[in-house]
Parts: sequence; C-alpha cells; structure tokens
Amino acid sequence: MSLEASAADMAIQENLEQFLVVLSVSLSVATISRIFSWFRQIPYTLLLVIVGLGLAFIDVRLVNLSPELILEIFLPPLLFEAAWNIRWRELKENWIPVVLFAIVGVIISVVGIALALSQLTDLALPIALLVGASLSATDPVSVVALFRELGASKKLTVLMEGESLFNDGVAVVAFLLLVGIPLGTEVFSVTDTVLSFGKFVGIGIGLGCLVGFGISYLTQRFDLPLVEQSLTLVSAYGTYLITEELGGSGVISVVTVGIILGNFGSRIGMNPRTRLLVSEFWEFLAFFVNSIVFLLIGDQIEFDSLSDNLDIIGIAIIAVLATRFIGIYGLANFSNVFTKVDISLPEQTVLWWGGLRGSVSIALALSVPVSLSGRQDIIDTVFGVVLFTLLIQGLSTQWVLKNLNLVGDQPLRQEYSELLARKMALGRVIDYFQTLDESPSIDSEFYRYEKELVTGQLKSIEEKIADFQQKYPQLESIAMQQLKDTLLDIEADTYAELIRNGKLGKNLSPIMLEILTESSEH
Amino acid sequence: MSLEASAADMAIQENLEQFLVVLSVSLSVATISRIFSWFRQIPYTLLLVIVGLGLAFIDVRLVNLSPELILEIFLPPLLFEAAWNIRWRELKENWIPVVLFAIVGVIISVVGIALALSQLTDLALPIALLVGASLSATDPVSVVALFRELGASKKLTVLMEGESLFNDGVAVVAFLLLVGIPLGTEVFSVTDTVLSFGKFVGIGIGLGCLVGFGISYLTQRFDLPLVEQSLTLVSAYGTYLITEELGGSGVISVVTVGIILGNFGSRIGMNPRTRLLVSEFWEFLAFFVNSIVFLLIGDQIEFDSLSDNLDIIGIAIIAVLATRFIGIYGLANFSNVFTKVDISLPEQTVLWWGGLRGSVSIALALSVPVSLSGRQDIIDTVFGVVLFTLLIQGLSTQWVLKNLNLVGDQPLRQEYSELLARKMALGRVIDYFQTLDESPSIDSEFYRYEKELVTGQLKSIEEKIADFQQKYPQLESIAMQQLKDTLLDIEADTYAELIRNGKLGKNLSPIMLEILTESSEH
Repeated sequence: MSLEASAADMAIQENLEQFLVVLSVSLSVATISRIFSWFRQIPYTLLLVIVGLGLAFIDVRLVNLSPELILEIFLPPLLFEAAWNIRWRELKENWIPVVLFAIVGVIISVVGIALALSQLTDLALPIALLVGASLSATDPVSVVALFRELGASKKLTVLMEGESLFNDGVAVVAFLLLVGIPLGTEVFSVTDTVLSFGKFVGIGIGLGCLVGFGISYLTQRFDLPLVEQSLTLVSAYGTYLITEELGGSGVISVVTVGIILGNFGSRIGMNPRTRLLVSEFWEFLAFFVNSIVFLLIGDQIEFDSLSDNLDIIGIAIIAVLATRFIGIYGLANFSNVFTKVDISLPEQTVLWWGGLRGSVSIALALSVPVSLSGRQDIIDTVFGVVLFTLLIQGLSTQWVLKNLNLVGDQPLRQEYSELLARKMALGRVIDYFQTLDESPSIDSEFYRYEKELVTGQLKSIEEKIADFQQKYPQLESIAMQQLKDTLLDIEADTYAELIRNGKLGKNLSPIMLEILTESSEH
Repeated sequence: MSLEASAADMAIQENLEQFLVVLSVSLSVATISRIFSWFRQIPYTLLLVIVGLGLAFIDVRLVNLSPELILEIFLPPLLFEAAWNIRWRELKENWIPVVLFAIVGVIISVVGIALALSQLTDLALPIALLVGASLSATDPVSVVALFRELGASKKLTVLMEGESLFNDGVAVVAFLLLVGIPLGTEVFSVTDTVLSFGKFVGIGIGLGCLVGFGISYLTQRFDLPLVEQSLTLVSAYGTYLITEELGGSGVISVVTVGIILGNFGSRIGMNPRTRLLVSEFWEFLAFFVNSIVFLLIGDQIEFDSLSDNLDIIGIAIIAVLATRFIGIYGLANFSNVFTKVDISLPEQTVLWWGGLRGSVSIALALSVPVSLSGRQDIIDTVFGVVLFTLLIQGLSTQWVLKNLNLVGDQPLRQEYSELLARKMALGRVIDYFQTLDESPSIDSEFYRYEKELVTGQLKSIEEKIADFQQKYPQLESIAMQQLKDTLLDIEADTYAELIRNGKLGKNLSPIMLEILTESSEH
C-alpha cells in the first residue's frame, strides 16, 4: 500500500510539474496576446492551438494527452460549466432544433463521413465509422466566445452550445457502440444498438437527475457557501465516474446535473451571493482547463504522420463539411416548418461553418484500443480534421458573422449602458458623501467642493442619457432591464456579503425578499 | 512515453476517486454539523479529525497520506492562502514577537523536546531531535477560525497566524538539517548548520521576492481577471517546486510570495473585483484542502501502534507543552520589555494553549527515510502528540478564551452593524423604486403602497440606530468604518463588475478613483 501510494504520488508530482509548465505557457500566451493588440482578433483558445503547434513543430512535447485525461479530468468540468450556464428557458424555446442537431445530426455525420471515407479511401468501413463517430462531437468554446464578444443573438448561442452539449454525449455513445465492431467482439444490429443507446442515455439522464435534484434539495436545507461550492465540484466528477461505473454515459449525466443545478438547484438552494461565487469558480475552472486542453491539442500534432495521410484527411474534411451542411440546413429548415423557432439562412450558415471539432474528438480517437490495426489512421485523420476546423473555420468565423450581418448592436448598447452605469455609480458617490457628512472629522469645505463637482458630472450624464433615449428608443427597454438586473444583483450581493462576513443576521427584511422574488419573475 | 503516461493517468484516476470519497465524507460532516446545532460548538476541522478517527477505528482507510502529498500538494495552497490574507501592516506592528516565536521558539522547542525524550525515554538523541523538529511547526487553522468567530483581538490572530506561517518554514529547515545525522551522512556542526539554514532561508526568501514582485509588476500591465487568478495558483505551486529544486525552502518562498501578492501585488496589479475573486478562490481552495487534510489526519491513526508507545507520547506531550510554555511566556515578556507590543498574560496563555500541531508535523514525521530504524517511533510519537493537541487543546481553547475574557464585544457590534446594513439596504430598495417609477409599465398604486411600507421601516430602523449610538458611543467609530469599507467595496465592485461584463469601458471617472484611493488611506 505504501509503495503503491508512493508511485501514485510521484506520478502526481510529475504531472503537477508538467501542468505548471503548460499553464505558464498558456498564461504567457494570454498575457502577450493582450499586450499586442493585433493578436486580440484571434480567440484565445485558437491562439493556444497555434502556439501548441509551434511547440510541436520544434518537437517540444509538454504532456501526453491521453483519452483518460481528457474524458475523466478535463471534460467533466467543461461540460458542467457549459450546462450550468445555459438558461433552461432559452433551451426550452429551441429544444426541437437542438435535439435534431444533436441526435439526427450526429447520425447523418457518422454515416456520411464513414461512407465517404470507406468509398473514397482504402479505410475499412468499421474504421471509417469510428472516424465518423469521433468527428461528430462539436466543440463550441471559441465560437461561443466570439458570439458573445460580437453580440450575436442569444438564439444562435443557445443553438450552438445546446447542440454541442448534447452531441458530445451522443457521439461518445455512438463511438462506444461502434468500437466493438472492428475488434470482432460485437456484430452490428439495429435493435441491439438502439437498446444499448437507450441504456447509456437512460442511465446517464437518470443518475444526472437523481444527483442534480438530490443536491438541489439538500442545499436548500442549509446556507454554507463553501460546502455548496464544493458540492458542485464533487457532483461534476462524482456523477461522471459513478455513471461510467454503472455503464451509463458520464457525459450525458454531467450535462444533466449541470443543467439542473444551474437552473434549479442554484435558485432554490443557494443565496444569490453563493450562486455568483459558484459561477465565478466554474468560469475560472473552465478557463483553466481550456488553457491546458487547447495548448495540448496543438502540441500533440505529429507532422510526419499527418503529412502521410493528407489525402484521407482532405476527404474527411470535405465529408465533415458536407455532412454538417446537410445536417444543419436540412434539419434547420425542417424545424423552421414544424416549430415556432425561425433559424434564418445566415444563421444556418454560421451554425454550419462554426461547427468546430475539439477535445472530445481527440479523446475518442486516442481511446481506440492499441490492438486495433487502423488506430494510427484514425488518430491522424481526426487530428487533421480538428486542426482544420479550429484553424481555418475557427479563424474565419468572425469574418463570416460580420459579412452575414449577424453582429448585434453591441457597441451602441455598450455606450448607453456605460452612461447608465456612470449615473448609478455617481449616485452612489453622492450617497457616500452623505455618510461622510455625518462623521465630524472631515474638512467640510473640501468635500463640499468635490460634491458639487460630482453633482455637475451627474447632471451632464443625465442629459446625455435623455439625448440617447430620444435618438435610439429601442435601447431603453434593453438597458433598463440590464440596469434592473444589476441593481438587484448588487442589492442581493450586499445582503449576502454582509451575512457571509458575519456582519448581519440571516433573516432578511421580508419586503426585500418579496421584491427580489417578484422582480426576478418579470 | 505512452505507457508511462498511462500509468500516471491511472494513478490520477485512482486518486481522483479516492479524493471524491474523502470530500464526500468531509462535506457530509460539514453539512450534518450545521443541521444539528450541538456540533456547531466544535470547529469544523476538529470535527473532521474526530470522524477520521472513527473511520480509522473501524479500519476504513481512505487515502494514504504521504509526505509528498502533504508537502507538495496540500501545503502550498494553505500557506499561500494564509499569507495572502495576513495584513502586512499588522504583521509589521508585531514582527518582533512573531520572529522571536518563529525562530527562537522553534529552537527552544526542538532542543527541549529532544532533551526530554532522550533523557526520559530510550529514544536516541538524533531520533529525539527529529521528533522535536517535527513537533515545532504549529497549525493555527482551527484556532484562528475560533478567534475570528469569537471576535478575539486582531493582535492575537496576527501573532498566532504569523508565528505559524514562519515557524513552518523554520521547522522544516531544522528537520532537513537534522535528518542527515541519524543516517550518518552528516555530522552536526554549528557553523555548517547556521550556513545551511541561511542558504535554505535565503534562497526561499529571494525566490519568493523575485516571483512575488515579478508577478506584481506583470499584472499591473494588464487587467485579465482569469489570468491573474491563474497566476496566483501557478505562482504558489511553481515557486514551491522551483525553490525546492534549487535547494531552498519551498515553504518559506510560498509564504513570501503570498505576503507580497496579497499586500502589494493585489493592490497595484488587480482591480478590486479581481482581488475579491482571487481571495474567494483561495478561501475555497483552503477550505477544500483542509477538508481533506484534517479528515485524513484522523484516518491515518494506527491505534495499536499508538498504544504501544503511550509512555513516549505522554512525555512528548508534556515536553511540547513545557517548551511552548517557556517559549511563549519567556519571549512574550522579553518582547514586552523591548518593543511597543504588549502581550498580556491572558493573551500569552491563549498563545501557549492554542499552539496546536497539524499536517506539517505529520508530513515531517512521515518523510523520515524508511531505512532509519527509529522511524515508526517518530511517527507514533508525532501522531500521538498531534492528536492530543488537536483534540484536547483544540476543543478547550474556546473555553480558555472565554474564561480569560479575551472574547470581544462581537455580539453587540454585530447587532449594530446589522442595523446599519438594514438601513443601507432599505435605502437601496427605495432607490430601486425610483428606477421603477421611470418605467411606465408598472401598477403604480401597488408600488406606492410598498414604498411607503419600506419608508416606514427605514424610519424605525433609523430611530433604533440613534438609540444605539446614545447607549454605546464606542460602537460608532468601528461600525462607521465598517460601513465605509463596505460601501467602498460595493462601489468598486460595481464598476469592476460592469467592466468585466463588458457593459462599461475601462476608464473610470477620475473623481471616483480619487475617492477610492483617498478613503483607503484613512
């Protein structure tokens, strides 16, 4: 036992050192990219891939990215964070296209890619199916970040992120069902496959609901921010491991837990302050993990091996683009006809072109058993396609968004929100002066002068706001909502902060509570 | 390479599962202890030790706590967090007693315990010296938490925490210098020892300063909260590993980095929002690590082995208490004579009795080479003493504090602060009503009624505050300062939050900035 643990510790220590190196490189990239403004056009994650490629090119290999590392250590927090942040209401509005993309889209993608590769290259069909399954999970990190930055519509973000959350699970399950075939341990049968699929997904959703609602009701019984924060972490990893242990889909269960805790548990069980704390913690964790993953994706590339397979990769890229073209345009128009959601042609185009492949694809390719003879072909093809989608599609998505006029009126909104925020802050400064007035030990002359200055500033800002409201009446409702949200957050945070510091008891003014609940329902 | 990595991954996965179990147990303890109020009297960490002991008693062993795990994985974040939060100003005011306790106190402790054990038991002097060094690092987690909860003076907290931060380093260095002697690889020589000690400490402080100030000036050049947060994590682990690699004291370098970043870097390089984020992140990490460590301390106990060594443990306990008695009373009175700091007799008593031993002692004992014949004696003695200090001293410290009248007027202050906070929050509610007035789509009758209710409440609270101020004039200044701090924090947070969300540009109103800077100097 002692020896065993010591080996594990050495592994931990070695890993710790390696990851510190990786993180240092990633953070340098993050820092340098902000200092030289030219780099800011490139999403952070894509910049990491490029730097990783550079390191791979000079044969500096940082950490060996194994499927276990991706699937068990990196994926649960990434999926949990995305699921935690997705709004149930928005997902519900768009659930039909999301489910169509995530299930039918994956089937189209697996079958299409497999057929293309088996017909046009000398890959055997079972191997081609594995490539297809690996390449059917989309990775929206960089694209969604772009959407947010450029102020694309919420619908677009939800479609992209929702699809990706669920198609990860479907692709992993499809891969697991297909991986037995080339090994000869399994014969393909539609009934068995549907049954297995149902079992994987059913156990995943079932356990996810159990843990999600269990923790939601549990956290309602106490108010311990640090414990609740820890519980989200334990639930993300724990649910994944337990579900996998029981033969279900860990990916699907983590997504389920994340959606439940983010939309339900965090509202009924956490005070607003805790919710904010937990969100910030997961935002950090996701940043942290992404900083590692994308650098390592680039750093894993074997240029020699890739260049040997350029023909297969080329065909795979075309197949990936073609199947996604069919999937997105076909399913989006199908959903346009049968649901209230309207996905316009430009939106379809962005969804098509922005469907990047990332860490899940790589994890699946790497998890092909070493005993399988086509393993290296699978890995090379998947790496090649991932690289193409990240670099070529990823770097041009911004251009596509802009040329399709899908960029929102973000700059205008921002200017207006800035004015509102200034007004709010200056109002607070004046409040602050009033608290100073009450305390005797202050040079009143100086403060009166300062106060007048601020009051003057406030007036000129109020004039500008009125001006803005006249010119752009459409802004008012949006910004007013934003301001209300902010005010409510601050109000709630104030209470929670004071409670946390032990400066205030836990029984809030009931009127306050009432207002909070009411306004959040507006 | 692939095989190697795969072994490491399996170790990671196994460790992940084990730690999830440990965390689940710890979180259950945290939760249950809050639901049944009787448990709330016992500090969380001590409760974990007791539960761990219970698990060890029924022979459920969760994870093998190895010295590498404690020293390389658990200790850096704990030290960094404590150092990050210690206020330089307060430390500076009390630096003479802190340094005396941390250096002279450790020497008294090592020598005293070693002499007692070598004279009164059959332990050889070199072995007894290692026990002495292991037992010279104090662990203030539970005691400092008690201090805060009961409102003990800041001086007491700083003395306890400062001593512990530095004596960890000194004890580790002393241990490393002494561990060569019984192995015969080193002969004791005062000159060599002093030189080695200087080298260890010098490299530690030097590298700590380099990294600390380096990162401080680096973060001043950009405003990227997630990167800055990651940098603190990388710097904690990275500095530790690099310093150890270069033959310095990792413990001392982490403490140095933590103090610099917490007091200097976070002020010049981080916006207030980021500082808060980072503090909250480290608070969580420390909670997380402590939840693991204290449970495992209890869970490591081998009852059979301990009971065989009860005589040595008994003598060691008396020696630990006696040397700390001499150290604290002697050095405190020495410092009282030569400095402005006045440590009263009751305060000395709490410092003496509250000097618990924890994870560092255990890590040092476990790190004794397996080849040394007295290893099990050292481990048993140290575990026995740690258990005594945690359970007997730890659980009675609250009683000691109360009986020595060192508990502050916390309840009174809290009631008053609560009133002030309510006033502030209700004021905000009224502000909020005003923003609602401007929006047309609201049932004005209903809101007018609600507004009057709130206004009425506000008035009655203001009356209570006036009443309080008359009765307890000493409260006013404290609470006013608290309120000001809170207001400033909120003000700064508002700006930072809005900037972070991209709702506001980065150029703050200069008057606002001025006010912020000025008031923080009051």
